[in-house]
Amino acid sequence: MSRTERVALLIGGVGGAKLAVGLAAILPPERLTIIVNTGDDFEHLSLHISPDLDTVVYNLAGVANPETGWGLAGDTFHAMEMVGQRGGAGWFRLGDRDLGVNLLRADMLRSGKTLSEVTRHLAQSWNVQHPVLPMSDDPVRTWLETEQGELGFQEYFVRERWQPVVKRIVFKNAENARPTPEVLSALESATLIVIGPSNPYLSIDPILAVPGVRDRIIENPAPCVAVSPIVGGQALKGPAAKLMSELDVAASPDSLARHYDGILDGIIIDTVDQSVVSELESRGTNAVALNTIMQSLPDKVRLAQELLIWAKEHYL
Amino acid sequence: MSRTERVALLIGGVGGAKLAVGLAAILPPERLTIIVNTGDDFEHLSLHISPDLDTVVYNLAGVANPETGWGLAGDTFHAMEMVGQRGGAGWFRLGDRDLGVNLLRADMLRSGKTLSEVTRHLAQSWNVQHPVLPMSDDPVRTWLETEQGELGFQEYFVRERWQPVVKRIVFKNAENARPTPEVLSALESATLIVIGPSNPYLSIDPILAVPGVRDRIIENPAPCVAVSPIVGGQALKGPAAKLMSELDVAASPDSLARHYDGILDGIIIDTVDQSVVSELESRGTNAVALNTIMQSLPDKVRLAQELLIWAKEHYL
Repeated sequence: MSRTERVALLIGGVGGAKLAVGLAAILPPERLTIIVNTGDDFEHLSLHISPDLDTVVYNLAGVANPETGWGLAGDTFHAMEMVGQRGGAGWFRLGDRDLGVNLLRADMLRSGKTLSEVTRHLAQSWNVQHPVLPMSDDPVRTWLETEQGELGFQEYFVRERWQPVVKRIVFKNAENARPTPEVLSALESATLIVIGPSNPYLSIDPILAVPGVRDRIIENPAPCVAVSPIVGGQALKGPAAKLMSELDVAASPDSLARHYDGILDGIIIDTVDQSVVSELESRGTNAVALNTIMQSLPDKVRLAQELLIWAKEHYL
Repeated sequence: MSRTERVALLIGGVGGAKLAVGLAAILPPERLTIIVNTGDDFEHLSLHISPDLDTVVYNLAGVANPETGWGLAGDTFHAMEMVGQRGGAGWFRLGDRDLGVNLLRADMLRSGKTLSEVTRHLAQSWNVQHPVLPMSDDPVRTWLETEQGELGFQEYFVRERWQPVVKRIVFKNAENARPTPEVLSALESATLIVIGPSNPYLSIDPILAVPGVRDRIIENPAPCVAVSPIVGGQALKGPAAKLMSELDVAASPDSLARHYDGILDGIIIDTVDQSVVSELESRGTNAVALNTIMQSLPDKVRLAQELLIWAKEHYL
């Protein structure tokens, strides 16, 4: 890496957070900015819940539940069990310590702090030094038009366990949302833009839907590369492959490259999909097959390292 | 008790809840209405906390923490510990399960339910059949002018552990609060009004400050009797005696009788204060000395029974 290398990473929750951990282990805070989806945020039981922001911060802080990738290690669930037992909406699994974080966020937001300020406070409270930025301080809310009617993201994802068939995805209020100055600055100054292995429809598209974000990526001559969350025709986690099939798109790296058409210069796919590298390159997308499965910390660091080396060899 | 006996009980939290449990063990739900102070309620971390209502419901439900008298038995404190660790206001001790109850209340209030409706829902969810009524659905907030400046009730009571010297007590918004129809109806139809062994200044006065409550007690020819929370010159619990001394009043049953002047017909004092019965009666307040210390359930039932028998012998 050159001394002036600056990476902007766009991610959602669990999958993207793994790459964030890998990159943060290599790059100092001034060389890596993490831009996080807030389309999954929702107002619930008087709280403002930011699942992806919390997941990213918890993982960077090393306090995430290692079994799920989200929530806090060793957390209990007494509060939400009580909500459910008393007839309330206990379906959203929020641990007690996690709830403490959410109570503090609700309190700070109510006192006039922005989501960016609250996220910075929380991250710093765990000594997380790399900037973790919400894509916007304005509310953008992912809704899904399904065969069971319109569902908010968490109703679809958690309450209905992403079983309803999706017809269309809507990012409510995206047209009125402003990217934060920090997000714009990171996208403008980046020498490499990385789209993490997150759900393209549910985690990355909301970020790209914030007016100005896509334009900044296009205007910046720096390369934009994506790590495919689709491996061997399946999503590593969550509904990406199911969604693609419902939206009449093959669950393949090629579909992903087409989905990001216009902003993407290169794509990192898994070694199991090695055979499609030449096909991708013949259509003008640089591609490389790497081991993208990140289970341990060394896995995350290795993929981040290989990604940076590949990008440097190709673009810098 | 005659078949038409109807008791209205006015109380605050822990001390009053003990008498509520005793009376509820004797009287069926249609003969006992419990009217609870909400001057201690406060907005905290986006929640609406109603300490006295919850204490009363938890005790009637048999789920209160037996060691403290408030909070839920066996609760954990992970959420509020996290709030404090992250730099938030973690000083209010709210257990995780207790927090679940408060999240549900916040959610129901936000959806337009009244505090009375929420309280009924929560009580019924624990199969508590006796009506537990907030004194008002409108906010009344107890503030204390102290030598350290003006403090909200919970700041004074919990955060500062009632150490600041109190100069004056204010019930904010009391003049605009309306008693609920259920409260008015209970006070109008009562054949006996009981003021529980709660702090007269901090638990009972806020109820009496709601316009219409004091008048209904005066207009109702039924007797009004109080159980003294002052025993042997000390408060059984909390700041009552300290407060009385700061307000230049002797901590005695006699001061209590004077404090309730105009509404009180009789007073139940503890056997240790037996010697002041004649003094109280000579000044026109019926008095009886009973064992008012309620530790076990039998203690609570016994005092309730003796109170009802005494009231019946004197007034009915």
